[in-house]
Amino acid sequence: MPRSLTSAPPHPGNLQALVALSLTPFGWRRTLGDQLRAGHDPARILDRLLARATPVPDMDRPSLLARASVALQRAADHGLQLLAWDDASYPAALSAIADPPPVLWIRGRPAALAPRAVAIVGSRAGSAYALAVAERLAADLVARGVVIVSGLARGVDSAAHRGALAARGATVAVLGSGADVIYPAEHRSLAREIEADGAILSELVPGTPPQKQFFPLRNRIISGLVRAVLIVEAGEKSGSLITARCALDQGRDVLAVPGNVLSGRNRGGHALIRDGAKIVESADDILEELGLPAPGGRTANGPEDPVLAGLPAGESCDLDAIAERTGLTSARLLPRLFELELAGLVKRVGGGRFARV
Amino acid sequence: MPRSLTSAPPHPGNLQALVALSLTPFGWRRTLGDQLRAGHDPARILDRLLARATPVPDMDRPSLLARASVALQRAADHGLQLLAWDDASYPAALSAIADPPPVLWIRGRPAALAPRAVAIVGSRAGSAYALAVAERLAADLVARGVVIVSGLARGVDSAAHRGALAARGATVAVLGSGADVIYPAEHRSLAREIEADGAILSELVPGTPPQKQFFPLRNRIISGLVRAVLIVEAGEKSGSLITARCALDQGRDVLAVPGNVLSGRNRGGHALIRDGAKIVESADDILEELGLPAPGGRTANGPEDPVLAGLPAGESCDLDAIAERTGLTSARLLPRLFELELAGLVKRVGGGRFARV
Repeated sequence: MPRSLTSAPPHPGNLQALVALSLTPFGWRRTLGDQLRAGHDPARILDRLLARATPVPDMDRPSLLARASVALQRAADHGLQLLAWDDASYPAALSAIADPPPVLWIRGRPAALAPRAVAIVGSRAGSAYALAVAERLAADLVARGVVIVSGLARGVDSAAHRGALAARGATVAVLGSGADVIYPAEHRSLAREIEADGAILSELVPGTPPQKQFFPLRNRIISGLVRAVLIVEAGEKSGSLITARCALDQGRDVLAVPGNVLSGRNRGGHALIRDGAKIVESADDILEELGLPAPGGRTANGPEDPVLAGLPAGESCDLDAIAERTGLTSARLLPRLFELELAGLVKRVGGGRFARV
Repeated sequence: MPRSLTSAPPHPGNLQALVALSLTPFGWRRTLGDQLRAGHDPARILDRLLARATPVPDMDRPSLLARASVALQRAADHGLQLLAWDDASYPAALSAIADPPPVLWIRGRPAALAPRAVAIVGSRAGSAYALAVAERLAADLVARGVVIVSGLARGVDSAAHRGALAARGATVAVLGSGADVIYPAEHRSLAREIEADGAILSELVPGTPPQKQFFPLRNRIISGLVRAVLIVEAGEKSGSLITARCALDQGRDVLAVPGNVLSGRNRGGHALIRDGAKIVESADDILEELGLPAPGGRTANGPEDPVLAGLPAGESCDLDAIAERTGLTSARLLPRLFELELAGLVKRVGGGRFARV
């Protein structure tokens, strides 16, 4: 369970070390991810990383741990929760990316970080068409049990959040500032609505102001949390294309909504389609693309188990293939496959392969 | 050269036999195409086809030849020209389709049937967006030396013709009625503009009224005349999808312009993209897709030779590959390749392969 941080410091050493790790340079994230996944102790990872780095003022063990303490205190003061790497509910999909955040600071309901999630991102200066499409698709997806992840930006991002809220669904906003620093400020009331049933989160310590360089890094978390990234209106140099690139690097699906070819507003999205992104018109297209059952299927009344969804009917898959389809690590997949087997929904077919019954 | 038919009958026997062949059932077109391509005599093909068919009233040699005579007379009266299978200027690309028309009745300038042609088709109830896109792309393509082929229908078809005319380019309309029967009637003045520098044509004998079953058959001629068919706005059951299907059967490229996903007007076009049609935003996209040089290339001031265009730079191709890329038969390709070789633009690289110099 994520920690609510209502208790005063001192916090368990692991937690403080993980926060300290999150304060190290972004260039270290891949090494850090490898060592966390290998199960190493956060405090020892911190020492090792610092030992081999060129010395830099304030980038030493005591300074980082002190800043971590301050961050934990500020989070407690502002009612933020902390979801750390060693927490069982740290999102499995995010733990699998090359450069996972050691901790996530969260406002709202951490349970909203569900595996059945799709990101909707696009132009900050979205056209009326783009906003209408983002709202419509977000509403249709949450009605089918999908959580909508986006970046709380102006334009398409906030339209996606609003569409999810209008359909009484959960939505998650990932920020390029501390989770307690809402940017743009005009989205403060939207943020409050989001945290009621969803979550606002950031890997940046509380109080971090929004900075240009944080947004591309934030984008890898948006794509890391989801099965697919849907681009709604992206011009040739849109930041959403960075999210699409992250999604491809992480093995997520990239989907794009087409639009007007005369305005130039869709050049980026259409280029993605030309390069292989799936063209999407409706929520059903998205669910079909993800191999999730569309309405009318036998699980139309509720979301299908994501592990079951990763097993195509009439085909057997090995663990690697299921891991790839679901974004879950084998450590998380095996117990779930065992449960599904017990429930009579999955069988082992020999050679380490599984199939739907 | 096509015949102007200003002279009174009797016409050469071959011509009358070819017109008679065009009056046989459409179901015979494939056999007929095979035999024409094999170089058989039209009168003998007619006899053979009739001999093995179930006897039907008026489907005998004298009746068909008599109807052919009437058609030739009517064409002469209305100033139509005839482009028959045995004419050297019968379009090479069209001669290669499975079910080629034995004759084409033409108003206007038969030379407009150039190999560097693209079809633009779409909804008869085109949105303002679709009409604007069709006009724009047609104008941009004719400015790059491409002939625009379409069906003179309301909506996208006529917008494509108008766009070509506005840019002082040649455009070709293929009808689902006789070439002297303009349908819809409101397009009579458009038809007159088209025939000034382009052509109106039909495989149906003069005077044939438009009938529902003729339009899908007409569509195979539209796609047969071109290198690529561009779909601009097609709903789920649009007739343009038949043209797209014909194009695929004939090995032509299918391209589609994306659009609004909320209106439902683009479902057919988007489904084509999902199935592999190329997504197109601009005339340059189309030329690139066809391997034709985009403006800025060395032939920006005039259309490049289509055979040369079929040879990608830095690659050698055998005759089959060039035939596939250009839609030209080897019989027509070889002399042209020889000319290009003499001009120092193409070289033989051994093994029956050719390359650009």
